[in-house]
Amino acid sequence: MRHAFDPAAFRWEGLAPRAYKDEPGTAHGMAWRGIARTTLRRGVFEVRYFELAPGGFSSLEKHAHEHVVFAVRGAGRALVGSEVVELHPLDLVETGPFVPHRWTNPGDEPFGFLCTVTGERDRPQPLSDDEWDALRADPRTAPFVTSISAREPR
Amino acid sequence: MRHAFDPAAFRWEGLAPRAYKDEPGTAHGMAWRGIARTTLRRGVFEVRYFELAPGGFSSLEKHAHEHVVFAVRGAGRALVGSEVVELHPLDLVETGPFVPHRWTNPGDEPFGFLCTVTGERDRPQPLSDDEWDALRADPRTAPFVTSISAREPR
Repeated sequence: MRHAFDPAAFRWEGLAPRAYKDEPGTAHGMAWRGIARTTLRRGVFEVRYFELAPGGFSSLEKHAHEHVVFAVRGAGRALVGSEVVELHPLDLVETGPFVPHRWTNPGDEPFGFLCTVTGERDRPQPLSDDEWDALRADPRTAPFVTSISAREPR
Repeated sequence: MRHAFDPAAFRWEGLAPRAYKDEPGTAHGMAWRGIARTTLRRGVFEVRYFELAPGGFSSLEKHAHEHVVFAVRGAGRALVGSEVVELHPLDLVETGPFVPHRWTNPGDEPFGFLCTVTGERDRPQPLSDDEWDALRADPRTAPFVTSISAREPR
């Protein structure tokens, strides 16, 4: 099976983007903005393409299943555990079990990445209060919980 | 964990290429040429980067486990089942269970792709005589078993 890639549209033949999440919930960190998801492949492992519009960000979450991420479009910035990483095309980032993570696009162009996960996987969880407070107390990671999530209830 | 990508060297920080296969065997289709493999990630699913030098080709094989391939460098040509597919960056190709496949680089520049597989997987097998003869009888697929494999015993 082949899905040709269209560089101009940044889409794969026969595969359409959809919303990032249907029910984000209201726990802290669950807010997100400006993300489209394209499922490129389902099965024992799944491959999704996520694209963040300028200013976009994913929910800040953790889970047992791991992510293997390859940046493929533009530039982005991620929180992975207590680290902030910059992402450019073909950079590889993994998030281990229960490592909090949030993907953001602080730039002016779309930021996109491939994300591979197991087909069977647990549901994302919000961070604990302690995890949240630790991220907020560190000036490097604070932007991922404060300015980004300004609309959140907490 | 992060492995920054170096576009000039086409390598990932901290990850080194190695030989494609240690013991190719002598069955028909097992010949290969000019391939380096870089394992980017091990685990429940594994991601490898394969790079074929100009004129390079992989073994012609089949197995129960599936491949999910994203072209990322240059241009290549693959045999997947009885189809011939051209590959350019971010094109996606899957090989299903026991679908014969061979990756080739007919061009003048390196051709590279990401290939994701399950961590536990069966050993590649050569094609049956019938499969081999069918590919040889079809002018579209014949180049994948004749000119490419001219050095082979059969």
